Amino acid sequence: MKSDEKAEKTNNPAKDKKKNFVTPRTLPGFMELLPAEQVLFNKMLDTIRTTYETFGFIPLDTPIIEFAEILLAKAGGETEKQIYKFDKGDNELALRFDLTVPLAKYVSQYYHSLTFPFRRYQIGKVFRGERPQKGRFREFYQCDIDIIGDGELSIMNDAEIPSIIYQTFKRMGFENFTIRINNRKILNGFFEALGLRDRASDVLRTIDKIDKIGEDSVRIELSNIGINQASVDSIIQFLSIKGSNSNVISALESMNIDNPVYLQGIQELKDVIYYIGCFEVPEKNFTVDLTIARGLDYYTGTVYETILNDYPQIGSVCSGGRYDNLAEYYTEKNLPGVGISIGLTRLFYKLLEAEIIKTANSSTAKVLIISMIEDMSFPLKLATELRSNGINTEIYYNNKGIKGKLTYANKLGIQFVAIIGEDEIKTGEISLKNMFTGEQQKLPLSEIIKRVS
Amino acid sequence: MKSDEKAEKTNNPAKDKKKNFVTPRTLPGFMELLPAEQVLFNKMLDTIRTTYETFGFIPLDTPIIEFAEILLAKAGGETEKQIYKFDKGDNELALRFDLTVPLAKYVSQYYHSLTFPFRRYQIGKVFRGERPQKGRFREFYQCDIDIIGDGELSIMNDAEIPSIIYQTFKRMGFENFTIRINNRKILNGFFEALGLRDRASDVLRTIDKIDKIGEDSVRIELSNIGINQASVDSIIQFLSIKGSNSNVISALESMNIDNPVYLQGIQELKDVIYYIGCFEVPEKNFTVDLTIARGLDYYTGTVYETILNDYPQIGSVCSGGRYDNLAEYYTEKNLPGVGISIGLTRLFYKLLEAEIIKTANSSTAKVLIISMIEDMSFPLKLATELRSNGINTEIYYNNKGIKGKLTYANKLGIQFVAIIGEDEIKTGEISLKNMFTGEQQKLPLSEIIKRVS
Repeated sequence: MKSDEKAEKTNNPAKDKKKNFVTPRTLPGFMELLPAEQVLFNKMLDTIRTTYETFGFIPLDTPIIEFAEILLAKAGGETEKQIYKFDKGDNELALRFDLTVPLAKYVSQYYHSLTFPFRRYQIGKVFRGERPQKGRFREFYQCDIDIIGDGELSIMNDAEIPSIIYQTFKRMGFENFTIRINNRKILNGFFEALGLRDRASDVLRTIDKIDKIGEDSVRIELSNIGINQASVDSIIQFLSIKGSNSNVISALESMNIDNPVYLQGIQELKDVIYYIGCFEVPEKNFTVDLTIARGLDYYTGTVYETILNDYPQIGSVCSGGRYDNLAEYYTEKNLPGVGISIGLTRLFYKLLEAEIIKTANSSTAKVLIISMIEDMSFPLKLATELRSNGINTEIYYNNKGIKGKLTYANKLGIQFVAIIGEDEIKTGEISLKNMFTGEQQKLPLSEIIKRVS
Repeated sequence: MKSDEKAEKTNNPAKDKKKNFVTPRTLPGFMELLPAEQVLFNKMLDTIRTTYETFGFIPLDTPIIEFAEILLAKAGGETEKQIYKFDKGDNELALRFDLTVPLAKYVSQYYHSLTFPFRRYQIGKVFRGERPQKGRFREFYQCDIDIIGDGELSIMNDAEIPSIIYQTFKRMGFENFTIRINNRKILNGFFEALGLRDRASDVLRTIDKIDKIGEDSVRIELSNIGINQASVDSIIQFLSIKGSNSNVISALESMNIDNPVYLQGIQELKDVIYYIGCFEVPEKNFTVDLTIARGLDYYTGTVYETILNDYPQIGSVCSGGRYDNLAEYYTEKNLPGVGISIGLTRLFYKLLEAEIIKTANSSTAKVLIISMIEDMSFPLKLATELRSNGINTEIYYNNKGIKGKLTYANKLGIQFVAIIGEDEIKTGEISLKNMFTGEQQKLPLSEIIKRVS
């Protein structure tokens, strides 16, 4: 190939130049959206952001590149394999793989300049060099909130989190979703009472799969890891506790397990459930679910998952929980926290794939101005007037007939077209066409602003 | 050191564990802000974003990682040295160093799915591995808009751009700034008339420095690159054309240079100047400046720079221009465009350093609710009510006295504190304290919503 190319180059440099285009392409596993999708994606992102701000969270933006040593202080295993590392200058650098490690770094580093509890949100891209496959991304948005206490953090924060999840998904247009809540202390205390304290994380990892693999498989796996039959029975019985939130609490209490961790867990869960109600989260949108353990050893108290009831196959769309110590690898300060994360890139992909959300317009413009006359001064003044009234406005400049101009509006899904001709300039009334209904009327500017706003 | 550490590890693992903290730190050349700065930064970012959308620009978000081959299709020299490259899997990957190359890739790649003119904005981080120095960043935000035509693009777009710059900086709170406008065709035609067509880019590069090095140095540099004395005189005379926009145009016309490129440039500049006025950009905020050439060979028509008049040392805060062909390395399609870019990270740094902008609050919350009673149900309901009225609200949960709780509000710069005690619950009226004025009043909820909104 190379020698052929060279020969051609000598014979016909101009033609060869054309052939030397670099093929424009995007890396596999990296989401890149067309305009209509991007407009929809950004709407979801904005909803998440503004909802987080409604709860008074502080924005944070940390670098995408950090010292690899910082990012990998805790990690190991999968994370280390997936991290994007590269060398530039003296130090080994890497791309962040989540927003929690940078938060831990940030809070330790600026501890003396921060006010606690530190309530921050961060929305940004993270990177994992996974094998690309359908619905898995190497670059994806995480939308995180965390509340970090200095030495202590009230359980009230655990109760506020579901109200944030509720508002976020409600404002994104969802109704039929359930926030599943559990408390790791209940599980841990229960295992302690069974004499399985040292096996707790193995057992939690196994029972965390119950939704995916079913009760029978969990029984088998538990036996396989050496849990005796009586304990397996107790665990399955425990996991079968279901019903209304108050029924579940009663059932837990009536088990008469006299373990302090267990009892503290129940008390915390009771408080959380009571106060979630005070935040006016409807009963149908949250439930105690003792099967939720959130695989990670990280969590130590309340844990959350969120399921879209009509699309359980998507899995949890918003998860998180309480942890005892955010930054143990960077500081001796004790920094308990509670937080959640929405993996927006994957969620968006899944929602679009399942046609739960649909693209509409490809533009941010609400009005397109098209002019049938040559002097553009009036159309430009009109655009400036609409824009100063907060109406996103575009002017079409290409030299086409009215049909071609309307086609442009149609393609972008712009709802209103303001048409300027000689008549409009004489009378001062502007033809406003609603592209969705086909309706067209001549209206004074003030009326146009009202209709369009 | 290493053997010492090992010895200690053996003697006292617990103590050693504490000593093994990874020091939390951020890479040099990477901006990381404290909350008050971040809140201010985000306000500027939001203003830019919403202003871009007012003009109907479509959001675009391309991956931060691309094939190095794509990013470097055109580049070479400095860019190639500064690019962050790394290996992961089979292909050579790199981090984007601007938003223009990804746009060129995107438009070529999705050409058949896009509607032209394609008006997109993109706000995102780009990466350059420069030697870190004061005010230079390795990771920084660019806020770009570009309008891409398919084969042709009306000069009206060139006139609209200054109105976008004007609105953006006005909405960010600036009054005293000047958008400097020139047209490369005037310069190119002028050089052609002097018989310096082949030297145009050398000459442009030199005269682009006139603001920095002065007229005498430009004369010397021009002589040094072999321009004869008569031509140097003409160039300096040409560059000395100053005055009102109409005076400059007249002076250009009265030079009687019968070169078609020169004359087209003047016509384009006249059109742009006329229509900028129609967009109601005040005369004081834009000016023709024949010294602006925008060093890059990239631009072929209108070019822009923006100067904060009171802080010329900051340099141009928003620059751009017209180019003939966006994507010549990826496609044979002819895609002319016009665009601008704001380098927000550097701008923010410079504005803060010069105390042109000042931080205020460290929170997004407008109201902090503090409760002097144990049952939190009323405070939580109040928070939910305020939030549903669009008021960003935080609840303080830590167990402190009233003074400690007010201190928290003060530290974060939250303007209003709603205080709930037994009295408030009995009467239904809430104590609202304005932390900025010290004023405190008992008010019904409806009145609180009004005051705070």
